[in-house]
Amino acid sequence: MAPRKEQQIFQATLELLAAKGYEGLTVEGVAERSGVNKTTIYRWWPSKAALLAAALVEADLLVSAPPDTGSLRGDLEALLRGVAALLTSPPAADVAVAALGAAVHHPELATAAQRFFADRFAREEAVFARARRRGELPDTADPMLIMDLLAGAVWLRAVFRGLPLDDDFAAGAVAAVLDGVTRPKAADAAKSLGEVP
Amino acid sequence: MAPRKEQQIFQATLELLAAKGYEGLTVEGVAERSGVNKTTIYRWWPSKAALLAAALVEADLLVSAPPDTGSLRGDLEALLRGVAALLTSPPAADVAVAALGAAVHHPELATAAQRFFADRFAREEAVFARARRRGELPDTADPMLIMDLLAGAVWLRAVFRGLPLDDDFAAGAVAAVLDGVTRPKAADAAKSLGEVP
Repeated sequence: MAPRKEQQIFQATLELLAAKGYEGLTVEGVAERSGVNKTTIYRWWPSKAALLAAALVEADLLVSAPPDTGSLRGDLEALLRGVAALLTSPPAADVAVAALGAAVHHPELATAAQRFFADRFAREEAVFARARRRGELPDTADPMLIMDLLAGAVWLRAVFRGLPLDDDFAAGAVAAVLDGVTRPKAADAAKSLGEVP
Repeated sequence: MAPRKEQQIFQATLELLAAKGYEGLTVEGVAERSGVNKTTIYRWWPSKAALLAAALVEADLLVSAPPDTGSLRGDLEALLRGVAALLTSPPAADVAVAALGAAVHHPELATAAQRFFADRFAREEAVFARARRRGELPDTADPMLIMDLLAGAVWLRAVFRGLPLDDDFAAGAVAAVLDGVTRPKAADAAKSLGEVP
């Protein structure tokens, strides 16, 4: 299928999911909204779960290239701002939150969510590989745990607590995980040494 | 209402939610399952959302006293094992995951989820207050961020990635946040100093 047509179908799938929920998502509705024949869609994706799984992993709306800012801290802050935007800025947020929320209830959609996270992590690994080459990350550090901590914090704060993510959230969360919360912060350490008024 | 009767109603509410989802939850169903008259339930909780909100915060099934192990590390590991059990061990997990997943779609339930997390955090604060008194945590550390990182990691790993939480997960996540992932681990540092064969 032509990439542009495929993206139209994915876009229609995600819009319909955001508007009507997983229960309201149908291949018929996607056909209508995208202007692509229903039987053509079924030929490529045998079910709405398969279609949504493909859309979650391949739709331009939800895909972003991993950052390369020159430092692990900069890359993780950029990644985290991306996760925050994905979960709080429409239209991507309407789609991402609806899909991930629905994945909790629908086993066939849970597989799609797992593919979505596995695919993201495969791309995020470049960030950690570069950090190791620069000597910024010990070999014992666990990249998936780092991403679980950071992305999980955004989900908990924004979706479950319903609290706003201020500008400092990404920097604060990354500092906590990279430096540890028991280590005095650089500014405070300097202050206690009398280096800062 | 007598506490035992109230707990029977909450228990029935949560069981029904886990079995039938939020759409399938009705005050009539709770009345039938708990043996308490429907009009009595409505007198105390005017809607199924209000009833579920109360159950999420007050049901014995989901409430646990914050740990007091004598150290921040021990307390956070215990808290995190509690979150892991809540999200992965039935029957609490069926209820908690169903309720939190449904909160994403239903604004009136989102408020209940917010109360659930606010109530847990109010109890978790004792852990951080004790850690500060013991000098284990700088004043600049942000307890809510620490809980968002840790509990969020459990949610992401167990629910979204669908991966098992092994015994080391709680200890590893707590070590990452307390010590920082860029700090060499104690065992490795000792090894590099030749203290461990």
